[in-house]
Amino acid sequence: ERQILMAERLGLEIIAIRTEWGKQMNPSLLEDALKENPDTKLVVATHAETSTGVLQNIEELGNIVSKTNALFMIDCVTSIAGTEILFDDWNIDFSYAGSQKCLASPPGLSPCAMSEKAYQYIKNRKTKPSSWYLDLSLVNDYWDKDHIPQYTVAVSSIYALYESLRLLEEEGLENRWNRHKVNAEKLRKGLTEIELNLPISPNDRLDQLTVVTKPDHIDDVEFRNKLIYDYNIEIGRGLGDFAGKVFRIGLMGESCKSEYVDQILEVFQKEI
Amino acid sequence: ERQILMAERLGLEIIAIRTEWGKQMNPSLLEDALKENPDTKLVVATHAETSTGVLQNIEELGNIVSKTNALFMIDCVTSIAGTEILFDDWNIDFSYAGSQKCLASPPGLSPCAMSEKAYQYIKNRKTKPSSWYLDLSLVNDYWDKDHIPQYTVAVSSIYALYESLRLLEEEGLENRWNRHKVNAEKLRKGLTEIELNLPISPNDRLDQLTVVTKPDHIDDVEFRNKLIYDYNIEIGRGLGDFAGKVFRIGLMGESCKSEYVDQILEVFQKEI
Repeated sequence: ERQILMAERLGLEIIAIRTEWGKQMNPSLLEDALKENPDTKLVVATHAETSTGVLQNIEELGNIVSKTNALFMIDCVTSIAGTEILFDDWNIDFSYAGSQKCLASPPGLSPCAMSEKAYQYIKNRKTKPSSWYLDLSLVNDYWDKDHIPQYTVAVSSIYALYESLRLLEEEGLENRWNRHKVNAEKLRKGLTEIELNLPISPNDRLDQLTVVTKPDHIDDVEFRNKLIYDYNIEIGRGLGDFAGKVFRIGLMGESCKSEYVDQILEVFQKEI
Repeated sequence: ERQILMAERLGLEIIAIRTEWGKQMNPSLLEDALKENPDTKLVVATHAETSTGVLQNIEELGNIVSKTNALFMIDCVTSIAGTEILFDDWNIDFSYAGSQKCLASPPGLSPCAMSEKAYQYIKNRKTKPSSWYLDLSLVNDYWDKDHIPQYTVAVSSIYALYESLRLLEEEGLENRWNRHKVNAEKLRKGLTEIELNLPISPNDRLDQLTVVTKPDHIDDVEFRNKLIYDYNIEIGRGLGDFAGKVFRIGLMGESCKSEYVDQILEVFQKEI
Protein backbone atom coordinates (compact mmCIF):
# COMPACT_ATOMS: atom_id res chain seq x y z
CA GLU A 1 0.00 0.00 0.00
CA ARG A 2 2.84 2.38 0.73
CA GLN A 3 4.35 1.72 -2.70
CA ILE A 4 0.99 2.76 -4.17
CA LEU A 5 0.93 5.98 -2.10
CA MET A 6 4.43 6.82 -3.24
CA ALA A 7 3.66 6.20 -6.91
CA GLU A 8 0.55 8.40 -6.62
CA ARG A 9 2.66 11.27 -5.27
CA LEU A 10 4.85 11.00 -8.36
CA GLY A 11 1.78 11.25 -10.58
CA LEU A 12 2.27 7.78 -12.03
CA GLU A 13 -0.53 5.72 -13.49
CA ILE A 14 -1.00 2.70 -11.25
CA ILE A 15 -2.72 -0.64 -11.64
CA ALA A 16 -2.99 -2.05 -8.12
CA ILE A 17 -3.42 -5.81 -7.76
CA ARG A 18 -4.84 -6.31 -4.30
CA THR A 19 -5.44 -9.87 -3.18
CA GLU A 20 -6.59 -11.58 0.00
CA TRP A 21 -4.78 -10.36 3.13
CA GLY A 22 -2.35 -12.97 4.42
CA LYS A 23 -2.06 -15.05 1.27
CA GLN A 24 0.49 -15.28 -1.52
CA MET A 25 -0.64 -13.68 -4.72
CA ASN A 26 -1.82 -15.94 -7.50
CA PRO A 27 0.71 -15.26 -10.30
CA SER A 28 -2.01 -15.55 -12.95
CA LEU A 29 -3.44 -12.24 -11.66
CA LEU A 30 -0.19 -10.53 -12.65
CA GLU A 31 -0.15 -12.38 -15.97
CA ASP A 32 -3.69 -11.17 -16.75
CA ALA A 33 -2.96 -7.59 -15.68
CA LEU A 34 0.13 -7.44 -17.92
CA LYS A 35 -1.86 -8.82 -20.87
CA GLU A 36 -4.50 -6.15 -20.35
CA ASN A 37 -1.84 -3.45 -19.99
CA PRO A 38 0.93 -4.28 -22.45
CA ASP A 39 2.52 -0.82 -22.01
CA THR A 40 3.34 -1.41 -18.35
CA LYS A 41 6.77 0.02 -17.57
CA LEU A 42 7.38 -1.27 -14.08
CA VAL A 43 6.07 -4.12 -11.94
CA VAL A 44 6.59 -3.73 -8.20
CA ALA A 45 6.28 -6.40 -5.52
CA THR A 46 7.34 -6.96 -1.92
CA HIS A 47 9.33 -10.10 -1.28
CA ALA A 48 8.79 -10.55 2.47
CA GLU A 49 5.74 -8.67 3.70
CA THR A 50 6.02 -7.83 7.38
CA SER A 51 2.44 -6.52 7.52
CA THR A 52 0.96 -9.85 6.55
CA GLY A 53 3.76 -12.31 7.32
CA VAL A 54 3.69 -13.55 3.74
CA LEU A 55 6.58 -14.49 1.44
CA GLN A 56 5.79 -13.82 -2.21
CA ASN A 57 6.92 -16.13 -4.98
CA ILE A 58 9.24 -13.64 -6.68
CA GLU A 59 10.75 -16.27 -8.96
CA GLU A 60 7.41 -17.00 -10.60
CA LEU A 61 6.41 -13.31 -10.81
CA GLY A 62 9.81 -12.41 -12.30
CA ASN A 63 9.40 -15.12 -14.88
CA ILE A 64 6.11 -13.54 -15.98
CA VAL A 65 7.50 -9.99 -16.08
CA SER A 66 10.59 -11.08 -18.04
CA LYS A 67 8.34 -11.99 -20.98
CA THR A 68 7.20 -8.35 -21.24
CA ASN A 69 9.02 -5.03 -21.68
CA ALA A 70 8.42 -3.99 -18.07
CA LEU A 71 11.13 -3.70 -15.42
CA PHE A 72 10.68 -5.72 -12.22
CA MET A 73 11.33 -4.01 -8.87
CA ILE A 74 11.39 -5.83 -5.54
CA ASP A 75 11.20 -4.61 -1.95
CA CYS A 76 13.76 -6.78 -0.16
CA VAL A 77 13.80 -4.77 3.08
CA THR A 78 12.89 -7.73 5.25
CA SER A 79 14.10 -10.58 3.05
CA ILE A 80 17.73 -9.54 2.60
CA ALA A 81 20.03 -11.91 4.55
CA GLY A 82 16.97 -13.63 6.05
CA THR A 83 15.90 -15.72 3.10
CA GLU A 84 17.15 -16.68 -0.35
CA ILE A 85 17.14 -13.95 -3.04
CA LEU A 86 18.43 -14.93 -6.48
CA PHE A 87 18.55 -11.52 -8.16
CA ASP A 88 19.61 -12.66 -11.64
CA ASP A 89 17.86 -16.03 -11.75
CA TRP A 90 14.57 -14.47 -10.71
CA ASN A 91 14.81 -11.76 -13.41
CA ILE A 92 14.81 -8.88 -10.91
CA ASP A 93 15.79 -5.48 -12.37
CA PHE A 94 15.91 -3.39 -9.25
CA SER A 95 15.75 -4.17 -5.55
CA TYR A 96 16.09 -2.10 -2.43
CA ALA A 97 16.63 -3.37 1.08
CA GLY A 98 17.14 -2.18 4.64
CA SER A 99 20.24 -2.30 6.81
CA GLN A 100 18.36 -2.82 10.05
CA LYS A 101 16.54 -6.13 9.72
CA CYS A 102 18.25 -9.44 8.93
CA LEU A 103 21.51 -7.65 8.07
CA ALA A 104 21.53 -6.58 11.73
CA SER A 105 23.12 -3.18 11.11
CA PRO A 106 21.79 0.15 12.46
CA PRO A 107 18.86 1.60 10.49
CA GLY A 108 19.57 4.41 8.07
CA LEU A 109 20.84 2.81 4.87
CA SER A 110 19.09 1.11 1.99
CA PRO A 111 21.32 -1.25 -0.01
CA CYS A 112 20.17 -1.39 -3.65
CA ALA A 113 20.92 -3.56 -6.66
CA MET A 114 20.08 -3.00 -10.30
CA SER A 115 20.27 -5.05 -13.47
CA GLU A 116 22.06 -3.84 -16.61
CA LYS A 117 18.58 -3.21 -18.07
CA ALA A 118 17.60 -0.98 -15.13
CA TYR A 119 20.97 0.79 -15.24
CA GLN A 120 20.51 1.62 -18.91
CA TYR A 121 16.94 2.78 -18.26
CA ILE A 122 18.08 5.16 -15.50
CA LYS A 123 21.02 6.39 -17.60
CA ASN A 124 18.82 7.15 -20.60
CA ARG A 125 15.73 8.63 -18.98
CA LYS A 126 14.89 12.06 -20.35
CA THR A 127 13.10 13.56 -17.37
CA LYS A 128 14.94 13.84 -14.08
CA PRO A 129 13.48 12.24 -10.96
CA SER A 130 11.81 14.74 -8.61
CA SER A 131 14.21 13.99 -5.79
CA TRP A 132 17.87 14.95 -5.97
CA TYR A 133 18.56 12.96 -2.84
CA LEU A 134 17.20 9.69 -4.23
CA ASP A 135 18.41 10.13 -7.84
CA LEU A 136 20.30 6.94 -8.63
CA SER A 137 21.85 8.37 -11.79
CA LEU A 138 23.82 10.67 -9.47
CA VAL A 139 24.80 7.70 -7.31
CA ASN A 140 26.02 6.01 -10.49
CA ASP A 141 28.04 9.13 -11.33
CA TYR A 142 29.75 8.72 -8.00
CA TRP A 143 30.67 5.09 -8.69
CA ASP A 144 31.80 6.07 -12.18
CA LYS A 145 35.35 7.16 -12.91
CA ASP A 146 34.52 10.85 -12.45
CA HIS A 147 33.53 10.28 -8.82
CA ILE A 148 31.14 13.24 -8.55
CA PRO A 149 29.77 13.47 -4.98
CA GLN A 150 26.00 13.94 -4.70
CA TYR A 151 25.83 14.74 -0.99
CA THR A 152 27.70 14.00 2.23
CA VAL A 153 27.07 10.34 3.00
CA ALA A 154 26.35 8.89 6.44
CA VAL A 155 29.90 7.59 6.82
CA SER A 156 29.45 6.01 10.25
CA SER A 157 26.42 4.02 9.05
CA ILE A 158 28.50 2.71 6.17
CA TYR A 159 31.23 1.55 8.56
CA ALA A 160 28.51 -0.18 10.60
CA LEU A 161 27.11 -1.86 7.48
CA TYR A 162 30.62 -2.94 6.52
CA GLU A 163 31.03 -4.59 9.92
CA SER A 164 27.62 -6.26 9.69
CA LEU A 165 28.56 -7.63 6.26
CA ARG A 166 31.81 -8.95 7.72
CA LEU A 167 29.83 -10.74 10.42
CA LEU A 168 27.49 -12.07 7.74
CA GLU A 169 30.43 -13.42 5.76
CA GLU A 170 31.80 -15.02 8.93
CA GLU A 171 28.47 -16.74 9.60
CA GLY A 172 27.86 -17.59 5.92
CA LEU A 173 24.86 -16.37 3.95
CA GLU A 174 23.23 -19.80 3.75
CA ASN A 175 23.82 -20.38 7.44
CA ARG A 176 22.06 -17.13 8.21
CA TRP A 177 19.08 -18.05 6.03
CA ASN A 178 19.05 -21.39 7.81
CA ARG A 179 19.25 -19.79 11.26
CA HIS A 180 16.11 -17.79 10.45
CA LYS A 181 14.40 -20.93 9.21
CA VAL A 182 15.31 -23.11 12.20
CA ASN A 183 14.31 -20.52 14.81
CA ALA A 184 11.05 -19.72 13.04
CA GLU A 185 10.19 -23.42 12.87
CA LYS A 186 10.91 -23.78 16.59
CA LEU A 187 8.73 -20.75 17.34
CA ARG A 188 5.84 -21.97 15.19
CA LYS A 189 6.06 -25.46 16.73
CA GLY A 190 6.03 -24.01 20.25
CA LEU A 191 3.08 -21.71 19.53
CA THR A 192 1.10 -24.61 18.08
CA GLU A 193 1.90 -26.69 21.18
CA ILE A 194 0.36 -24.04 23.44
CA GLU A 195 -2.66 -24.28 21.12
CA LEU A 196 -2.33 -20.96 19.40
CA ASN A 197 -3.40 -20.59 15.79
CA LEU A 198 -1.12 -19.51 12.92
CA PRO A 199 -3.34 -17.86 10.29
CA ILE A 200 -0.81 -17.87 7.42
CA SER A 201 -0.73 -21.15 5.51
CA PRO A 202 2.57 -23.10 5.76
CA ASN A 203 3.55 -22.44 2.13
CA ASP A 204 3.15 -18.67 2.39
CA ARG A 205 4.92 -18.05 5.72
CA LEU A 206 7.86 -15.79 6.40
CA ASP A 207 10.61 -17.01 8.70
CA GLN A 208 11.51 -13.46 9.72
CA LEU A 209 8.04 -12.67 11.05
CA THR A 210 5.50 -15.02 12.54
CA VAL A 211 1.85 -14.06 12.72
CA VAL A 212 -0.17 -15.69 15.51
CA THR A 213 -3.89 -15.30 16.22
CA LYS A 214 -4.70 -13.42 19.42
CA PRO A 215 -6.93 -15.48 21.76
CA ASP A 216 -10.26 -13.72 22.42
CA HIS A 217 -9.73 -13.42 26.19
CA ILE A 218 -6.49 -11.44 25.75
CA ASP A 219 -6.52 -7.64 25.42
CA ASP A 220 -4.28 -6.62 22.53
CA VAL A 221 -2.70 -3.42 23.86
CA GLU A 222 -2.56 -4.53 27.49
CA PHE A 223 -0.80 -7.77 26.59
CA ARG A 224 1.79 -6.16 24.37
CA ASN A 225 2.49 -3.49 26.98
CA LYS A 226 2.92 -6.18 29.64
CA LEU A 227 5.49 -7.89 27.44
CA ILE A 228 7.42 -4.67 27.01
CA TYR A 229 7.36 -3.48 30.62
CA ASP A 230 7.57 -6.82 32.45
CA TYR A 231 9.73 -8.83 30.07
CA ASN A 232 11.47 -6.31 27.81
CA ILE A 233 10.03 -8.07 24.73
CA GLU A 234 8.42 -6.07 21.95
CA ILE A 235 6.01 -7.73 19.54
CA GLY A 236 3.96 -6.12 16.80
CA ARG A 237 0.27 -5.46 16.48
CA GLY A 238 -1.89 -6.66 13.60
CA LEU A 239 -2.18 -4.38 10.59
CA GLY A 240 -4.84 -3.97 7.89
CA ASP A 241 -7.36 -6.83 7.93
CA PHE A 242 -5.42 -8.34 10.83
CA ALA A 243 -5.71 -5.24 13.08
CA GLY A 244 -6.59 -6.27 16.64
CA LYS A 245 -6.72 -9.94 15.66
CA VAL A 246 -3.10 -11.09 15.63
CA PHE A 247 0.33 -10.56 17.11
CA ARG A 248 3.40 -10.27 14.89
CA ILE A 249 6.60 -11.77 16.30
CA GLY A 250 9.82 -10.76 14.55
CA LEU A 251 12.92 -12.93 14.51
CA MET A 252 15.47 -11.00 12.50
CA GLY A 253 19.23 -10.67 12.54
CA GLU A 254 20.52 -10.34 16.11
CA SER A 255 17.10 -11.04 17.63
CA CYS A 256 16.85 -14.36 15.80
CA LYS A 257 18.30 -16.57 18.53
CA SER A 258 17.17 -19.90 19.92
CA GLU A 259 17.20 -18.60 23.51
CA TYR A 260 14.93 -15.71 22.58
CA VAL A 261 12.46 -18.21 21.11
CA ASP A 262 12.53 -20.15 24.41
CA GLN A 263 11.97 -16.92 26.30
CA ILE A 264 8.95 -15.75 24.33
CA LEU A 265 7.35 -19.22 24.37
CA GLU A 266 7.75 -19.28 28.15
CA VAL A 267 6.12 -15.87 28.45
CA PHE A 268 3.24 -16.80 26.14
CA GLN A 269 2.66 -20.03 28.11
CA LYS A 270 2.57 -18.12 31.38
CA GLU A 271 0.52 -15.10 30.30
CA ILE A 272 -2.01 -16.57 27.86
CA GLU B 1 22.78 26.48 -7.68
CA ARG B 2 21.79 23.12 -6.22
CA GLN B 3 18.64 24.65 -4.74
CA ILE B 4 17.76 25.80 -8.27
CA LEU B 5 18.37 22.31 -9.71
CA MET B 6 16.14 20.79 -7.02
CA ALA B 7 13.32 23.27 -7.61
CA GLU B 8 13.51 22.59 -11.36
CA ARG B 9 13.04 18.88 -10.74
CA LEU B 10 9.87 19.65 -8.83
CA GLY B 11 8.57 21.65 -11.77
CA LEU B 12 8.50 24.90 -9.79
CA GLU B 13 8.71 28.31 -11.40
CA ILE B 14 11.99 29.86 -10.34
CA ILE B 15 13.37 33.37 -10.33
CA ALA B 16 17.11 32.99 -9.78
CA ILE B 17 19.00 35.98 -8.41
CA ARG B 18 22.64 35.36 -9.32
CA THR B 19 25.19 37.90 -8.14
CA GLU B 20 28.93 38.22 -8.24
CA TRP B 21 30.79 35.10 -7.06
CA GLY B 22 32.36 35.64 -3.65
CA LYS B 23 30.30 38.66 -2.59
CA GLN B 24 27.29 39.13 -0.34
CA MET B 25 24.10 39.75 -2.22
CA ASN B 26 22.82 43.28 -2.35
CA PRO B 27 19.44 43.08 -0.53
CA SER B 28 17.89 45.58 -2.95
CA LEU B 29 18.10 42.90 -5.66
CA LEU B 30 15.72 40.74 -3.62
CA GLU B 31 13.51 43.73 -2.90
CA ASP B 32 13.21 44.50 -6.61
CA ALA B 33 12.58 40.86 -7.56
CA LEU B 34 9.78 40.59 -5.00
CA LYS B 35 8.21 43.81 -6.25
CA GLU B 36 8.25 42.47 -9.80
CA ASN B 37 6.85 39.11 -8.65
CA PRO B 38 4.31 39.82 -5.92
CA ASP B 39 2.94 36.23 -6.08
CA THR B 40 6.23 34.71 -4.93
CA LYS B 41 5.52 31.88 -2.49
CA LEU B 42 8.97 31.07 -1.20
CA VAL B 43 12.29 32.87 -0.96
CA VAL B 44 15.34 30.64 -0.52
CA ALA B 45 18.84 31.63 0.56
CA THR B 46 21.98 30.04 1.91
CA HIS B 47 23.31 31.46 5.16
CA ALA B 48 26.93 30.30 5.05
CA GLU B 49 28.05 29.41 1.53
CA THR B 50 30.91 26.93 1.56
CA SER B 51 31.38 27.23 -2.21
CA THR B 52 32.22 30.91 -2.04
CA GLY B 53 33.16 31.42 1.61
CA VAL B 54 30.49 34.09 1.95
CA LEU B 55 28.11 34.78 4.84
CA GLN B 56 24.79 36.24 3.67
CA ASN B 57 22.96 38.92 5.60
CA ILE B 58 19.93 36.81 6.44
CA GLU B 59 18.55 39.37 8.89
CA GLU B 60 18.21 41.99 6.19
CA LEU B 61 16.83 39.54 3.60
CA GLY B 62 14.31 38.19 6.14
CA ASN B 63 13.19 41.70 6.89
CA ILE B 64 12.41 42.24 3.20
CA VAL B 65 10.58 38.90 2.81
CA SER B 66 8.51 39.48 5.95
CA LYS B 67 6.81 42.42 4.23
CA THR B 68 5.44 40.07 1.54
CA ASN B 69 3.30 36.92 1.61
CA ALA B 70 6.24 34.65 0.79
CA LEU B 71 7.80 32.17 3.17
CA PHE B 72 11.53 32.47 3.85
CA MET B 73 13.69 29.34 3.79
CA ILE B 74 17.34 29.22 4.83
CA ASP B 75 20.09 26.66 4.27
CA CYS B 76 21.90 26.58 7.61
CA VAL B 77 23.98 23.46 6.87
CA THR B 78 27.29 25.18 7.53
CA SER B 79 26.16 27.98 9.80
CA ILE B 80 24.44 25.95 12.53
CA ALA B 81 26.52 26.07 15.73
CA GLY B 82 29.31 27.93 13.89
CA THR B 83 27.75 31.37 13.74
CA GLU B 84 24.78 33.25 15.14
CA ILE B 85 21.31 32.30 13.77
CA LEU B 86 18.33 34.17 15.19
CA PHE B 87 15.46 32.18 13.68
CA ASP B 88 12.57 34.28 14.99
CA ASP B 89 14.22 37.70 14.97
CA TRP B 90 15.35 37.25 11.38
CA ASN B 91 11.84 36.24 10.23
CA ILE B 92 12.93 32.79 9.03
CA ASP B 93 10.08 30.37 8.28
CA PHE B 94 11.98 27.22 7.57
CA SER B 95 15.59 26.20 7.94
CA TYR B 96 17.48 22.98 7.44
CA ALA B 97 20.96 22.18 8.65
CA GLY B 98 23.52 19.38 8.72
CA SER B 99 24.73 17.27 11.62
CA GLN B 100 28.28 16.93 10.31
CA LYS B 101 29.70 20.43 10.22
CA CYS B 102 29.90 22.77 13.21
CA LEU B 103 27.64 20.47 15.25
CA ALA B 104 30.46 17.92 14.95
CA SER B 105 28.18 14.89 14.76
CA PRO B 106 28.43 12.13 12.11
CA PRO B 107 26.83 13.01 8.75
CA GLY B 108 23.40 11.60 7.97
CA LEU B 109 20.88 13.86 9.70
CA SER B 110 19.41 17.23 8.81
CA PRO B 111 18.00 19.16 11.78
CA CYS B 112 15.12 21.39 10.67
CA ALA B 113 13.10 24.20 12.19
CA MET B 114 9.87 25.76 11.02
CA SER B 115 7.81 28.77 12.00
CA GLU B 116 4.13 28.56 12.88
CA LYS B 117 3.41 30.08 9.45
CA ALA B 118 5.42 27.33 7.68
CA TYR B 119 3.78 24.66 9.87
CA GLN B 120 0.32 25.86 8.90
CA TYR B 121 1.30 26.03 5.24
CA ILE B 122 2.55 22.42 5.28
CA LYS B 123 -0.51 21.25 7.22
CA ASN B 124 -2.93 22.88 4.79
CA ARG B 125 -1.32 22.19 1.44
CA LYS B 126 -3.66 20.40 -0.92
CA THR B 127 -1.16 18.52 -3.08
CA LYS B 128 1.19 16.08 -1.44
CA PRO B 129 4.95 16.49 -1.86
CA SER B 130 6.46 14.07 -4.37
CA SER B 131 8.65 12.42 -1.79
CA TRP B 132 7.21 10.30 1.02
CA TYR B 133 10.61 10.19 2.67
CA LEU B 134 10.99 13.96 2.90
CA ASP B 135 7.33 14.79 3.62
CA LEU B 136 7.41 16.97 6.73
CA SER B 137 3.67 16.69 7.31
CA LEU B 138 4.32 13.02 8.11
CA VAL B 139 7.16 13.99 10.44
CA ASN B 140 4.70 16.32 12.14
CA ASP B 141 2.23 13.43 12.47
CA TYR B 142 4.94 11.57 14.31
CA TRP B 143 5.52 14.40 16.78
CA ASP B 144 1.76 14.80 17.19
CA LYS B 145 -0.17 12.87 19.78
CA ASP B 146 -1.00 10.04 17.36
CA HIS B 147 2.67 9.21 16.92
CA ILE B 148 2.36 7.68 13.43
CA PRO B 149 5.75 6.39 12.30
CA GLN B 150 6.76 7.34 8.75
CA TYR B 151 9.79 5.07 8.40
CA THR B 152 12.48 3.47 10.51
CA VAL B 153 14.73 6.28 11.69
CA ALA B 154 18.52 6.13 11.85
CA VAL B 155 18.51 5.61 15.62
CA SER B 156 22.27 5.47 16.10
CA SER B 157 22.73 8.79 14.26
CA ILE B 158 20.18 10.35 16.59
CA TYR B 159 22.08 9.12 19.65
CA ALA B 160 25.22 10.61 18.13
CA LEU B 161 23.46 13.94 17.52
CA TYR B 162 22.16 13.89 21.09
CA GLU B 163 25.72 13.49 22.38
CA SER B 164 27.00 16.25 20.09
CA LEU B 165 24.27 18.56 21.40
CA ARG B 166 25.28 17.65 24.96
CA LEU B 167 28.86 18.62 24.15
CA LEU B 168 27.58 21.83 22.56
CA GLU B 169 25.64 22.67 25.70
CA GLU B 170 28.73 21.96 27.80
CA GLU B 171 30.81 24.32 25.65
CA GLY B 172 28.05 26.91 25.34
CA LEU B 173 26.56 28.01 22.03
CA GLU B 174 28.11 31.48 22.15
CA ASN B 175 31.47 30.01 23.12
CA ARG B 176 31.32 27.76 20.09
CA TRP B 177 30.49 30.66 17.78
CA ASN B 178 33.40 32.50 19.34
CA ARG B 179 35.77 29.54 18.94
CA HIS B 180 35.03 29.55 15.21
CA LYS B 181 35.60 33.29 15.08
CA VAL B 182 38.87 33.29 17.02
CA ASN B 183 40.43 30.42 15.08
CA ALA B 184 39.33 31.86 11.73
CA GLU B 185 40.86 35.22 12.64
CA LYS B 186 44.10 33.51 13.63
CA LEU B 187 44.12 31.59 10.33
CA ARG B 188 43.42 34.70 8.25
CA LYS B 189 46.10 36.67 10.09
CA GLY B 190 48.63 33.88 9.55
CA LEU B 191 47.83 33.53 5.86
CA THR B 192 48.19 37.28 5.36
CA GLU B 193 51.54 37.20 7.15
CA ILE B 194 52.88 34.66 4.68
CA GLU B 195 51.66 37.07 2.01
CA LEU B 196 48.75 35.08 0.70
CA ASN B 197 45.68 36.89 -0.58
CA LEU B 198 42.14 36.46 0.82
CA PRO B 199 39.72 37.24 -2.04
CA ILE B 200 36.57 37.57 0.10
CA SER B 201 36.14 41.04 1.58
CA PRO B 202 36.30 41.21 5.42
CA ASN B 203 32.59 41.96 5.80
CA ASP B 204 31.44 38.99 3.75
CA ARG B 205 33.69 36.29 5.19
CA LEU B 206 32.69 33.02 6.80
CA ASP B 207 34.54 31.87 9.91
CA GLN B 208 33.85 28.20 9.11
CA LEU B 209 35.55 28.31 5.75
CA THR B 210 38.43 30.48 4.63
CA VAL B 211 39.11 31.06 0.95
CA VAL B 212 42.71 31.83 0.03
CA THR B 213 44.09 32.63 -3.42
CA LYS B 214 46.39 29.99 -4.87
CA PRO B 215 49.82 31.41 -5.80
CA ASP B 216 50.54 30.98 -9.52
CA HIS B 217 53.63 28.81 -9.03
CA ILE B 218 51.68 26.17 -7.08
CA ASP B 219 49.89 23.30 -8.87
CA ASP B 220 46.38 22.96 -7.47
CA VAL B 221 45.93 19.16 -7.46
CA GLU B 222 49.55 18.34 -6.67
CA PHE B 223 49.59 20.68 -3.65
CA ARG B 224 46.33 19.40 -2.20
CA ASN B 225 47.45 15.79 -2.68
CA LYS B 226 50.75 16.55 -0.95
CA LEU B 227 48.84 17.94 2.02
CA ILE B 228 46.72 14.80 2.26
CA TYR B 229 49.48 12.23 1.82
CA ASP B 230 52.35 13.97 3.60
CA TYR B 231 50.50 15.85 6.33
CA ASN B 232 47.06 14.19 6.64
CA ILE B 233 45.39 17.56 6.02
CA GLU B 234 42.54 17.87 3.54
CA ILE B 235 41.66 21.26 2.05
CA GLY B 236 39.09 22.02 -0.63
CA ARG B 237 39.47 23.07 -4.22
CA GLY B 238 37.91 26.19 -5.72
CA LEU B 239 34.41 25.86 -7.15
CA GLY B 240 32.52 27.80 -9.83
CA ASP B 241 34.30 31.03 -10.76
CA PHE B 242 36.98 30.16 -8.20
CA ALA B 243 37.83 26.78 -9.78
CA GLY B 244 41.59 26.29 -9.94
CA LYS B 245 42.20 29.73 -8.43
CA VAL B 246 41.74 29.27 -4.66
CA PHE B 247 42.00 26.82 -1.80
CA ARG B 248 39.15 26.44 0.69
CA ILE B 249 40.21 25.74 4.29
CA GLY B 250 37.48 24.49 6.59
CA LEU B 251 37.52 25.06 10.35
CA MET B 252 34.35 23.43 11.63
CA GLY B 253 33.35 21.67 14.82
CA GLU B 254 36.06 19.27 15.97
CA SER B 255 38.51 20.47 13.33
CA CYS B 256 38.25 24.06 14.55
CA LYS B 257 41.18 24.02 16.97
CA SER B 258 43.99 26.47 17.55
CA GLU B 259 46.66 23.76 17.15
CA TYR B 260 45.26 22.77 13.75
CA VAL B 261 45.54 26.40 12.66
CA ASP B 262 49.21 26.38 13.75
CA GLN B 263 49.76 23.16 11.85
CA ILE B 264 48.30 24.30 8.55
CA LEU B 265 50.10 27.66 8.72
CA GLU B 266 53.38 25.82 9.27
CA VAL B 267 52.71 23.58 6.27
CA PHE B 268 51.72 26.52 4.05
CA GLN B 269 54.85 28.38 5.10
CA LYS B 270 57.06 25.41 4.28
CA GLU B 271 55.42 24.28 1.03
CA ILE B 272 54.47 27.55 -0.66
